[in-house]
Amino acid sequence: MPKLWNETIDAHRHAVREAILDATAQLVEAGGLRSVTMSQVAERTGIGRATLYKYFSDVDAVLLAWHERQITGHLQHLAEVRDRAGTAGERLEAVLRSYAAIAGQRHGGELATYLHQGEHITHAERHLTGIVEDLITEGAQAGDLRADIPPAELAQYCLHALTAAAGLTSKAAVTRLVDVTLDGLRPVP
Amino acid sequence: MPKLWNETIDAHRHAVREAILDATAQLVEAGGLRSVTMSQVAERTGIGRATLYKYFSDVDAVLLAWHERQITGHLQHLAEVRDRAGTAGERLEAVLRSYAAIAGQRHGGELATYLHQGEHITHAERHLTGIVEDLITEGAQAGDLRADIPPAELAQYCLHALTAAAGLTSKAAVTRLVDVTLDGLRPVP
Repeated sequence: MPKLWNETIDAHRHAVREAILDATAQLVEAGGLRSVTMSQVAERTGIGRATLYKYFSDVDAVLLAWHERQITGHLQHLAEVRDRAGTAGERLEAVLRSYAAIAGQRHGGELATYLHQGEHITHAERHLTGIVEDLITEGAQAGDLRADIPPAELAQYCLHALTAAAGLTSKAAVTRLVDVTLDGLRPVP
Repeated sequence: MPKLWNETIDAHRHAVREAILDATAQLVEAGGLRSVTMSQVAERTGIGRATLYKYFSDVDAVLLAWHERQITGHLQHLAEVRDRAGTAGERLEAVLRSYAAIAGQRHGGELATYLHQGEHITHAERHLTGIVEDLITEGAQAGDLRADIPPAELAQYCLHALTAAAGLTSKAAVTRLVDVTLDGLRPVP
C-alpha cells in the first residue's frame, strides 16, 4: 500500500480512538466509573460493538486509556500554568491551586484505586513532583519560601497535603486547603 | 458443657489466634507482606496446617486479621499519647509525631492497598480524624493554633500531609515533615 494510504488509515484509527475516549469521558461524567459498559460506549461513539472490540478488549482497557489521556491532559495543563509569568512563589501557588482543583475532582472507589495503580500514574507523579520541586528550589533561593527543608521533601509535603481535596465538598474549602499548605512553605522567621 | 469449660475453650482459641497473628507479624517484618504463606505461618506458630485452616480460610484472611490488630494497636497508642499532660498544641504535636512514625512504616504494594480498603481502615481513619480535630479545636480556642479555618479541614490537611512519611527514608526527614505540617497550623499573624 502507498504511504499516503497508511497515513490515512492511521489518522482514521486515531480519530475513532479519540471519539471512543470522548464518549467514555461523557459516560464517566454522567454516571461515574462503574456505570460505563462496552455497549454504552459503542452507542455513544456511534460505532458497532464489534468495531469497539477491535480497539479495546474490555471496559477496563477503555477506562485505562481514558484515564491515561486525562492524566496527560492534566500534566500539560499544569506545565502551562508553571510557564506563565510571575515569581517562582506565584507560579508555585498557581500550580498548587490547579492541582488541588484536579485532586478535588477525583472519582472514588475501588476502580479509581485500580486506575491509580497504573504505570502512567507513577510517571505522572514523578513529573509533577519535579515541577513542584523546581519551583520550590527557585522560590527558596529568592527568599520567598523556606530554605531550611530540602525542596524534594517540601514537594512531597505539598502534593500529599493537597490529596485531602478529594474529600472536600466545596471550592472554598479547597482554596483554604491550598492556603494552609502554602503557609507551611513560608520562610521561618 | 459447664460454663467454665466454654470459657476455657474460648481462652484457648483466643490464645492460638493471637499466636498466629504474632507469627504473621514476624513473617511480615522479615520478608514483607507478599512473602507470607499458610505453611510458614503454621510452622512459625507451632501448629499444623490443618489447625491453621480452622482459624483462617486463606493467607489474605490471616493478613487482614493481623492488619486489623495492628491498626487497633496504633489507635490505642495514639489515644494514649493524646491523653498525656500538656496543652492541646503540645498534645497535637505528640499525636502527629506518633502518627507520622506509624505512616513511615507503611508497607507498600498492591497488597497494602488491598488491606487499606478494608472497613476497619475507614473506621480507624474516622476515629483518628476525630482525635486530631478535637485537639485542633481546643488549640485554636487557646490561641495556639489558627482559628481562621474549620478544624475538620485542618485535621484532613494534617493527616494527608503526613502520609508523605511513607515515601521518606530517614527519621530526620519524618521529623521535618511534621515540622512543616505544624507550621501550616500556626495562627496567622
